[in-house]
Amino acid sequence: MQNTPKEWNLIDVIKYRVQRQNKNTVVPLGDDAFVFKNFPGYSVICQDMMVEDVHFKTDYCSAYSLGHKSLAVNLSDIAAMGARPHFIQCSLSLPAKYTTESWLDDFYKGMVALADEHGCEVIGGDLTASTDKISIDVSVYGSCEHPLTRKGVKSGDLLLSSGPLGLSYTGFLALNKNINGYEEAKKKHTQPLPRLDLVQTISQNHQKIHALMDCSDGLVNDSLQLIPENGGLHIFEESLPVHQETAQLAIDLGRSVTELVLWGGEDYELLMAIHPDDYSLFQDWKLIGQFTNSPGVFLTDSHAQKEIKEFKGWKHF
Amino acid sequence: MQNTPKEWNLIDVIKYRVQRQNKNTVVPLGDDAFVFKNFPGYSVICQDMMVEDVHFKTDYCSAYSLGHKSLAVNLSDIAAMGARPHFIQCSLSLPAKYTTESWLDDFYKGMVALADEHGCEVIGGDLTASTDKISIDVSVYGSCEHPLTRKGVKSGDLLLSSGPLGLSYTGFLALNKNINGYEEAKKKHTQPLPRLDLVQTISQNHQKIHALMDCSDGLVNDSLQLIPENGGLHIFEESLPVHQETAQLAIDLGRSVTELVLWGGEDYELLMAIHPDDYSLFQDWKLIGQFTNSPGVFLTDSHAQKEIKEFKGWKHF
Repeated sequence: MQNTPKEWNLIDVIKYRVQRQNKNTVVPLGDDAFVFKNFPGYSVICQDMMVEDVHFKTDYCSAYSLGHKSLAVNLSDIAAMGARPHFIQCSLSLPAKYTTESWLDDFYKGMVALADEHGCEVIGGDLTASTDKISIDVSVYGSCEHPLTRKGVKSGDLLLSSGPLGLSYTGFLALNKNINGYEEAKKKHTQPLPRLDLVQTISQNHQKIHALMDCSDGLVNDSLQLIPENGGLHIFEESLPVHQETAQLAIDLGRSVTELVLWGGEDYELLMAIHPDDYSLFQDWKLIGQFTNSPGVFLTDSHAQKEIKEFKGWKHF
Repeated sequence: MQNTPKEWNLIDVIKYRVQRQNKNTVVPLGDDAFVFKNFPGYSVICQDMMVEDVHFKTDYCSAYSLGHKSLAVNLSDIAAMGARPHFIQCSLSLPAKYTTESWLDDFYKGMVALADEHGCEVIGGDLTASTDKISIDVSVYGSCEHPLTRKGVKSGDLLLSSGPLGLSYTGFLALNKNINGYEEAKKKHTQPLPRLDLVQTISQNHQKIHALMDCSDGLVNDSLQLIPENGGLHIFEESLPVHQETAQLAIDLGRSVTELVLWGGEDYELLMAIHPDDYSLFQDWKLIGQFTNSPGVFLTDSHAQKEIKEFKGWKHF
């Protein structure tokens, strides 16, 4: 038949890029839906959207980075449950200037490179036009034996972070202000690495972990989700995990480094709550605070404590 | 803490509207990801996006209709595998004027009314700002014992439709041209009903069904996906399932009713291929064509056959 839709070719480009062999696949990519054999344990699903000029700008985010990052933010949620990812669906709505084979190929190269690292596979989604901006919505299906949740913190528990906080925001500032250097920070912002590398240790020690979540909206913002009713949190200012590029940018811009660490989002590190006796099991993690049995979030150092009363984090609306 | 994000309240509105009891739930809505016990059989997943001014206009699509339709198009894909839906994730990106409790409540009322009819539940997703247009991306998790695919048509098989075709496009035309009446067609367009009502019969007779898919992009467009290599299809013009409102609108607009049926999309009926001997099992379905062993799609009546050479269906780009 003549004059069939251009998107049929584009979808072939995507298929060619993403298809893998998977012994659980029953009906592959290309039917009304994807069908697979269940994995052992429980099923885990999540879905996260990124919108141009809200979550990213195309000035400094390449198609490759967008493919990477839109998957990474979801894999981070999978890691935060102590789970493993298996299958990915990606819906893309694209303005005309991006509906080219080369843009799509770059986007899926970025996504698939990360997916391959973690043994998961793109198996579906949607591709539509947009009148104006790029929207990317990714969902991931995974599985786990022992899900770890945000609930379960007890007074006295330690708060740990798997890595530096504020580094992605450092990159965001450097990119938006067109400042040279800050390469690690920029990479952390445009191509964050989900901490699936920690899932094996987490799973082995799941009985010792009272709560786990990923740090996507900033330390204070996310910690608020962990604090039990009528409880509080002391954040240890002198122990905050500050990357040297964050410290440097704070100096360069005349800003408080603590503020960058407390409120900067999108690090996709993990936050964990454990009993103090179990800290030896997680020595690679940074100790950044302790939960208490009286309300309020406080910033403490060896001399004083100061309540954080005003929310300064990321707001979607 | 003072001045926390507005979206926290909005998310509470959504949670209140959508949460249900489900015996398979392990970690409910509100954590990094949703965790559930596996269902018997195979897992089935799909994901479909709708974008303002590409797939719908807010002039004639209410928040309630958008909630309904964005789920319906996915439930149709689940039905097309012979599967049952269980869990729904919905990502919404909304311009400022729609980020209100009342808009979100109406949207989720529409989605949940349809979900409740089919025993499935909204358990996650995302809510983000948009600078301009509404984007809605929904994924559904379901399960089935015997997946039915688009592959498996044999020469001589009959092509059946579960209902009228072109009716949604009739509604689309009436809405876009501001024509009064055509109420069934308008409802079919804004609030299509996925044919999950047929899944029980389909499952019972799964061994007799050579191929199954949903008709979302128009009869010719979708039938092309069913035709085996080097095969063809004869569409019976005199048997096309035409709703009276489609026939009437064709007259009113001076258009060919056959063209409306062949190319109009979004009916979300099911298309099925079976051996002629098994037609008695599916007498409620409309017989609309027959697959052949020579290439080409033909429109036939009792006198003649005419090849359809030019693609005239929906193109995303």
